[in-house]
Amino acid sequence: MKIDVVQNVLDAGQAVARDNRARMDKAHLVCINLLSAPGSGKTSLLERTIPAVSPAKRCAVLVGDLQTTRDAERLGDLAIQVTQINTGSGCHLTPTQVAVGLKTLDLEGIDYLFIENVGNMVCPAAFDLGEHLRVVLLSIPEGDDKVAKYPVLFHQAQAILLTKVDLLGVLDYDISRVRGDLSKLNTAAPLIELSSKTGDGLDKWLKWLGEQ
Amino acid sequence: MKIDVVQNVLDAGQAVARDNRARMDKAHLVCINLLSAPGSGKTSLLERTIPAVSPAKRCAVLVGDLQTTRDAERLGDLAIQVTQINTGSGCHLTPTQVAVGLKTLDLEGIDYLFIENVGNMVCPAAFDLGEHLRVVLLSIPEGDDKVAKYPVLFHQAQAILLTKVDLLGVLDYDISRVRGDLSKLNTAAPLIELSSKTGDGLDKWLKWLGEQ
Repeated sequence: MKIDVVQNVLDAGQAVARDNRARMDKAHLVCINLLSAPGSGKTSLLERTIPAVSPAKRCAVLVGDLQTTRDAERLGDLAIQVTQINTGSGCHLTPTQVAVGLKTLDLEGIDYLFIENVGNMVCPAAFDLGEHLRVVLLSIPEGDDKVAKYPVLFHQAQAILLTKVDLLGVLDYDISRVRGDLSKLNTAAPLIELSSKTGDGLDKWLKWLGEQ
Repeated sequence: MKIDVVQNVLDAGQAVARDNRARMDKAHLVCINLLSAPGSGKTSLLERTIPAVSPAKRCAVLVGDLQTTRDAERLGDLAIQVTQINTGSGCHLTPTQVAVGLKTLDLEGIDYLFIENVGNMVCPAAFDLGEHLRVVLLSIPEGDDKVAKYPVLFHQAQAILLTKVDLLGVLDYDISRVRGDLSKLNTAAPLIELSSKTGDGLDKWLKWLGEQ
């Protein structure tokens, strides 16, 4: 009798992620997994991004939350398709949940598929969902010490968005500390400063997105 | 051959938590587990709280983080004893990690032992560490929708601190929404509004703490 449950589960998850990616590749869409702490502004970013790129780019969203459909409701009028995935007590989206979510979408009619992961700086970073790009949000009020404290999250990102920069004048915040910590972890990903409230910096984010 | 690994692991964790509580009860200290998203102000709250209650109350802190000793360094001069627990990739403190941490402290010389858990609104809520009280922090910039989205965290709290209220004039925030969501989840815990920056509301928090 052979017992290697953990290995099997991880392998199975990786296989599902690969299958998700293959399905999305076939549909010629770009899938962006958004990761951050709770309240960093993932939904607000999408509320700005989707109208700015539509109708040239057709956007859909898979929204992960433990409970409620509040984020999906906020995005329902903006995206072509929105599917809410409630994880119950699950601290991150799984490849299998995303696979089920993909079945609810008409993938051929989508250019950008955004996955809004559960708000959590730790667990979602460990799971490949089959996405093409990982974008991490870090908001000014969370403090300038978070890159060093949550290195796995920032190490794996293709872009890092410093959000709520409209609060830079109100809060003590040292961006050079963030840049210094990132220089040891991830020098490939751009750090894009923006505010979904004022619109500052959104052009840089949209330019980066358009280049992917 | 019997396989019930999950049950055994959970039982073992509960046994360690009970042992932790027994050790702290014997030392006549009160242990407060602080839980919140990253950057909600757990360390800042302790930077205000410890000097305010010292020397009448002797304070120690167990600080949980994936990496770095930054929080412990901030608290090192304020508390009688501070122990940093680095979880590596662990998304929450475990009862066993706390048991190891307790061994580093002179429990008889402590009145309040604060556990600063890993910043995460999901996973830490599922683990009894042996604490006497759970205090959940929710900061204004995280948004007024978080109680309904992370119900387990708020359901189990003995007190809920609404932090960074100095930003109420800067950000759109509806406290009545928070109160409404809490009314369905937890009516026993007080909701205490405070700002560690300005000091507003700290008297209410200190009063509550003194009554425990």
